[in-house]
Amino acid sequence: MNPKIVLRIISYLLLILCAFMLTAVAVALYFREFAVVPAFMVPVALTVVIVGLFLLVTRNSGRSQPSFKDGFLFVSGGWALAAALGALPFYLSGTIPSYCDAYFESISGFTTTGASILTEIQSLPRAILFWRSLTHWLGGMGIVVLTVAILPLLGVGGLQLVKAEAPGPTVDKITPRIAETAKYLWYIYLGMTIVETLLLMGGGMGFLDALTHTFGTVATGGFSTMNISVAHFDSAYIDWVITFFMVIAGMNFVLHFRLLTGNLQNLFVNTELKAYLLIFFTATLMIAGKLHLEVYQSFTEALRYSAFQVASILTTTGFATADYEKWPYMAQAILLLLMFVGGCSGSTGGGIKVIRIVTLFKQAVNEMKYLIHPKAVFPLRFSGQVVGKTIVYAISGFFFLYITILLLVTFAVSLAGVDLLSALTAALATLGNIGPGFGVVGPTKNYAHFPDFVKWVLSFAMMAGRLELYTVFVLFTPMFWRR
Amino acid sequence: MNPKIVLRIISYLLLILCAFMLTAVAVALYFREFAVVPAFMVPVALTVVIVGLFLLVTRNSGRSQPSFKDGFLFVSGGWALAAALGALPFYLSGTIPSYCDAYFESISGFTTTGASILTEIQSLPRAILFWRSLTHWLGGMGIVVLTVAILPLLGVGGLQLVKAEAPGPTVDKITPRIAETAKYLWYIYLGMTIVETLLLMGGGMGFLDALTHTFGTVATGGFSTMNISVAHFDSAYIDWVITFFMVIAGMNFVLHFRLLTGNLQNLFVNTELKAYLLIFFTATLMIAGKLHLEVYQSFTEALRYSAFQVASILTTTGFATADYEKWPYMAQAILLLLMFVGGCSGSTGGGIKVIRIVTLFKQAVNEMKYLIHPKAVFPLRFSGQVVGKTIVYAISGFFFLYITILLLVTFAVSLAGVDLLSALTAALATLGNIGPGFGVVGPTKNYAHFPDFVKWVLSFAMMAGRLELYTVFVLFTPMFWRR
Repeated sequence: MNPKIVLRIISYLLLILCAFMLTAVAVALYFREFAVVPAFMVPVALTVVIVGLFLLVTRNSGRSQPSFKDGFLFVSGGWALAAALGALPFYLSGTIPSYCDAYFESISGFTTTGASILTEIQSLPRAILFWRSLTHWLGGMGIVVLTVAILPLLGVGGLQLVKAEAPGPTVDKITPRIAETAKYLWYIYLGMTIVETLLLMGGGMGFLDALTHTFGTVATGGFSTMNISVAHFDSAYIDWVITFFMVIAGMNFVLHFRLLTGNLQNLFVNTELKAYLLIFFTATLMIAGKLHLEVYQSFTEALRYSAFQVASILTTTGFATADYEKWPYMAQAILLLLMFVGGCSGSTGGGIKVIRIVTLFKQAVNEMKYLIHPKAVFPLRFSGQVVGKTIVYAISGFFFLYITILLLVTFAVSLAGVDLLSALTAALATLGNIGPGFGVVGPTKNYAHFPDFVKWVLSFAMMAGRLELYTVFVLFTPMFWRR
Repeated sequence: MNPKIVLRIISYLLLILCAFMLTAVAVALYFREFAVVPAFMVPVALTVVIVGLFLLVTRNSGRSQPSFKDGFLFVSGGWALAAALGALPFYLSGTIPSYCDAYFESISGFTTTGASILTEIQSLPRAILFWRSLTHWLGGMGIVVLTVAILPLLGVGGLQLVKAEAPGPTVDKITPRIAETAKYLWYIYLGMTIVETLLLMGGGMGFLDALTHTFGTVATGGFSTMNISVAHFDSAYIDWVITFFMVIAGMNFVLHFRLLTGNLQNLFVNTELKAYLLIFFTATLMIAGKLHLEVYQSFTEALRYSAFQVASILTTTGFATADYEKWPYMAQAILLLLMFVGGCSGSTGGGIKVIRIVTLFKQAVNEMKYLIHPKAVFPLRFSGQVVGKTIVYAISGFFFLYITILLLVTFAVSLAGVDLLSALTAALATLGNIGPGFGVVGPTKNYAHFPDFVKWVLSFAMMAGRLELYTVFVLFTPMFWRR
């Protein structure tokens, strides 16, 4: 392990975040919100001084590359510190008077969870709301990927870092060099952001509302600048635009790259994409049918609200256009099931992810085949390729860990005297980076009422979920710290 | 596949059940409940005639042994038909006027779930209550194990049948011959039954109440002859006796055998047993502490109610001495977690089982070690022995299938317009063969109010859970039916 190099890369990461904080200052100046400027400038100045001095002092520490272990330490540490820095504007501006709450809001932003402790949102300074949504955007594609894209100096070790941030079963390399891949991913992301913003402005949204809601969409975040989320705009056009982009953001960005470079073949053989779309359309139609029967007279309207909410939950975004807790229980049960799924690998979505669900399903079916023909060999195929046992093993371990942590976090939340469904879905909505759950954390509620220790536990759950568990939990094994 | 031989063994199984039905007739005659005698005698007579004729006609069909596939077909078919036969006395006596309800009660009995559709229990004919509890006792150790124990003519194929009924990760053979092993297991079971019955009678219970509650305990079933379950007796002595035997019944019966034959060494190295006791004591103490603070003045009383309920849920029995839905949410959350665990392998308990939880936990930890040292080899040890990858693979598949079916059954229950927590715990309580859940299926409620299709789904879940999923689901694969 090389703590110095880890701290150096974290320093770069924090400096990049400071640069983005300055855009929030620009927003403050534009809207003449001078009072909040220090809330951004003080953390920026402090970070630049401390981190700059550190970089200066350690500049002769050699050009050794980060190791395996360094990667885990950097990513977990980098995320925790990024959230700590990102919380300062909320705290220093007085918008969120408790630092625990500010940290919760910040990590919820970076992890693209979208769980909020804010009750009154619309009246807050626009620079604060902009920063709040910007954390989504930065965290969506990954702050580590961003660092690697901006700083090619990381060289070979960069792949290890990116893998630790998104340790999913497939880290497809688009180009041989990881820094280049990271750059392409960010270009696609940026392109999506521009297109959606323009489309939303076309629907009558102001620039800032369009931009912040786009951040919340393409990052599958879910923070809105409105108290009642996207329902505020009450526009079928806006709902459909956001639905479309949520579904797109929940897909593997490598597929978007292939599509843009004219490589369509990949799309049709991609098992994960097919399963993802199948889940989306099935759930949407089932809920739409039920809503049409019991809530909305027009099927078009039922479809609009159903598609939006299914996309929002499946992709782990968390926007709301309806209070789904007033829907028939059958529709609620489908949403609960979707909370266990999540987006595709390589997307900005969280959760268990479609690729793992499909792999485990195929493995379970294979086990039945082995019962019938114990001596035969049934290879597990995914997108036409055989998946090795080691990968299935890792996914199995992930799934068990996910359910176990889910239940332990449920228990922790229940210590606050919260009913079981609320506790369970609060755990599910944070671990899966979704945002809203059911009961006291339902779509019209928020996380303000929890005691501090629950907020810290949920903050941890958000980070562990975003970094797909292992990157965080490996730090808790004694073996990691052994020489 | 050989349908004739499958039907022949099922015939034997049904004849054995008929013999046990006659004991219920004896109870009816003793208590002068002559009106219910035909409800037992008609099914017995019909079964003997039909099955007897079938056996007579096919007696020259050769002595071929049941194959692999035959085993699955026999066990699933045998259980489904046993429940169908066992439901007839409820139905024909008019005690349960709907056959769907009667089937639910019967399969709930045989699978030792203990979920009931009865609201008024105490006033029912004693022969009916005796039969209801007897189904627990027969299903607890396994009706297939019973058939194999009674009919040594099955020979070698018997092991395959027993394995299909309890396809857990370890089917330890006590003796080289499976028929002998089956006999020993039933002897231990019988011994436990006699001792607990005597101890309960010593606490002031009448013979029939003592016997039926013993059936519910040693089989980890949960049917009581009282409307408010074991709470009816309101006796610390009775509570502790039942608690003790629930814990014993949740252990691997092979360990009981080893203990009785003086082989103590096995107990101390058994990883599953250690984990099981650790879970039991930790959960009991945590809940007792909380109950002492908020509900009961005396710690002894808090401990009594806590230990009883923890044992009841962990071992998947389902008896109740308190309405745990009125307990602090923290205590409820622990009970919810325990519903995901279940008893030990080779016990009469259901659920995922401790052995699987521990194995998966060890595997998840191993995955972290592989992240740190990708090229090292970390064998997974259980009770001092290395567990092969094939077994871990099968357990992983089981766990995923369990959670998936749990969520799908939750969805099915929600179709009845039931809230999510009730739907989820109804699924959990039937799939895990527990009995009571939360909400509309809480410890003071029952399953009567569900529409028929939900009762059929839950009946299926109980059977699938009891036969540990694969034995039932393998029948749904096209490969099974291919030549």
